[in-house]
Amino acid sequence: MSYASAQALVADDLATVEQLMLKKIGSNYAPLAEVLTTLVHSGGKRVRPTLSLLAARFYPPAKHRRLISLAAAVESLHTATLVHDDVIDGALLRRGQSTLNAQWTPASTITAGDYFFARAAALAAETEHPRVIQLFADTLGVIVDGELRQAFTARDWSQPKEAYFDRIYGKTAALFEVATRTAAVLGAAPDEAEEALRAYGYHLGMAFQIVDDILDFVADENTLGKPAGSDLRSGIITLPVFFYIQQPERRDELVALVDGQRQGEDVVAEVVGLIRASEAIAEARVEAVRFVDHAIADLSLFPFSPHRSALEDIARYVVERDF
Amino acid sequence: MSYASAQALVADDLATVEQLMLKKIGSNYAPLAEVLTTLVHSGGKRVRPTLSLLAARFYPPAKHRRLISLAAAVESLHTATLVHDDVIDGALLRRGQSTLNAQWTPASTITAGDYFFARAAALAAETEHPRVIQLFADTLGVIVDGELRQAFTARDWSQPKEAYFDRIYGKTAALFEVATRTAAVLGAAPDEAEEALRAYGYHLGMAFQIVDDILDFVADENTLGKPAGSDLRSGIITLPVFFYIQQPERRDELVALVDGQRQGEDVVAEVVGLIRASEAIAEARVEAVRFVDHAIADLSLFPFSPHRSALEDIARYVVERDF
Repeated sequence: MSYASAQALVADDLATVEQLMLKKIGSNYAPLAEVLTTLVHSGGKRVRPTLSLLAARFYPPAKHRRLISLAAAVESLHTATLVHDDVIDGALLRRGQSTLNAQWTPASTITAGDYFFARAAALAAETEHPRVIQLFADTLGVIVDGELRQAFTARDWSQPKEAYFDRIYGKTAALFEVATRTAAVLGAAPDEAEEALRAYGYHLGMAFQIVDDILDFVADENTLGKPAGSDLRSGIITLPVFFYIQQPERRDELVALVDGQRQGEDVVAEVVGLIRASEAIAEARVEAVRFVDHAIADLSLFPFSPHRSALEDIARYVVERDF
Repeated sequence: MSYASAQALVADDLATVEQLMLKKIGSNYAPLAEVLTTLVHSGGKRVRPTLSLLAARFYPPAKHRRLISLAAAVESLHTATLVHDDVIDGALLRRGQSTLNAQWTPASTITAGDYFFARAAALAAETEHPRVIQLFADTLGVIVDGELRQAFTARDWSQPKEAYFDRIYGKTAALFEVATRTAAVLGAAPDEAEEALRAYGYHLGMAFQIVDDILDFVADENTLGKPAGSDLRSGIITLPVFFYIQQPERRDELVALVDGQRQGEDVVAEVVGLIRASEAIAEARVEAVRFVDHAIADLSLFPFSPHRSALEDIARYVVERDF
């Protein structure tokens, strides 16, 4: 089963989630509403709300409306972090479209990101479930802490692999984890089911980010929708880089290149080429597969069902996707 | 009674609020914790949590801990908006201290602001009161909408006075309003008491921002802690500017100056001088006093008490302060 057919199980709910995300935007100042609407529509594959909606099938919440709010909160938070990431990275392209940042001033872009943070908080509050709201708020903290940590650890070439895992937990896995866990909480799932769905989200999120970091080296720019090696430009050490620099002479060469006098795109292209040609990519992929295997195993607690199969298929898709 | 003695009524609670704001920061990456701690400590007069704590005295909440969380949420949200405002304005000075922005990269600064947004959401969630959480989340939306509106209406010299009032509601009064209103909600105050405290917060917040906008023209830079006329630099039309340009020939002169070929600090200084010397300042002050009179009248519902007097004194202080 493909990602599309896994997602098709919850297509109707997903459409409602999108409507809810768009609902309040119309009441804004018109030129602003247009930009915010574009941001919602440029929302990619909706992996995170799809996970919430599928995870909720095991123990359906009594009030379906709250699940829709939760899924919309999850995706709004994701949108908020994307918008701020774009300002932070100074990235001009994401998903092949011109980012908000390239058209708008940084001021408006920061505030547009804040808008989606605010919407995420309001949508989470609409679940009216104290523990869901608390878990969601805590996750926001973890995400931000991860961002800050990333800013502070850039260009530290001797950081351990755990530092990378900590960062991608904050950057990606924390939101995947809360997306599936809070769906279970809303449905009053037993503790072990909540834990299984939390663990599934966590392991899937870790794999997802590792694959993203691999694609930053191996995908071509047209498929990727943004320039390759973009993290490297900011001195962020992702898993392929980590594996590559475990040989001291390679580390010295890479540091000399990246921190050296010769700057700019040709240096990045050279480093991307070195890493792409090395075994570091395959080593990183082994780690991603390990996390996906964990995610699939986490679901073994549940009887076979279309939604269990769909979550398994999404897990497989995460390591097989090439964009 | 002075502001200090009004605040002294809730000094112990205010200290607990500050501890709660600092509590989680210590668990962050050390260099980061240092910056975040500095941001909490540079927190000015704590007007907003003081208002929550005093407003709660009319109908004390059953669980005092929740009130502390609420007050800390209010001040954390204020801190978040200050940090982002600094990036947005590119302001190098606030409260006479070098802002975070001048020391840090925009990236880290945006994320530090997000950190306080996240803390505010988590602290609001700790009140465990669905309506408080919802009101708080809605306010976050109003604040952000105000910021965006400000960015979109800059340099529109023909906007009506209502556009200014709408903006300062989002920028300031919405948070004052939610600070006093949610204190009443937590204490299960009757509807008319909740409405009176909401209205008090709203009117006080409007007055507070008008006075801030006046001080931007009349206070000297040392007292202000930042350069005078800072809004004018960004093309933001505050109330003194609004009154000044109601005479068409003045408007033409001002637009010619601000949008003209001659740019920079001497133009700002010239315009600040023109407005400062005009009756526009006094006209703006009349509006501020009108809002403060409303705020004091809003409290007439309540019997005399030390906390009612303290709130009245804070209202008077807001229009009398010179920084």
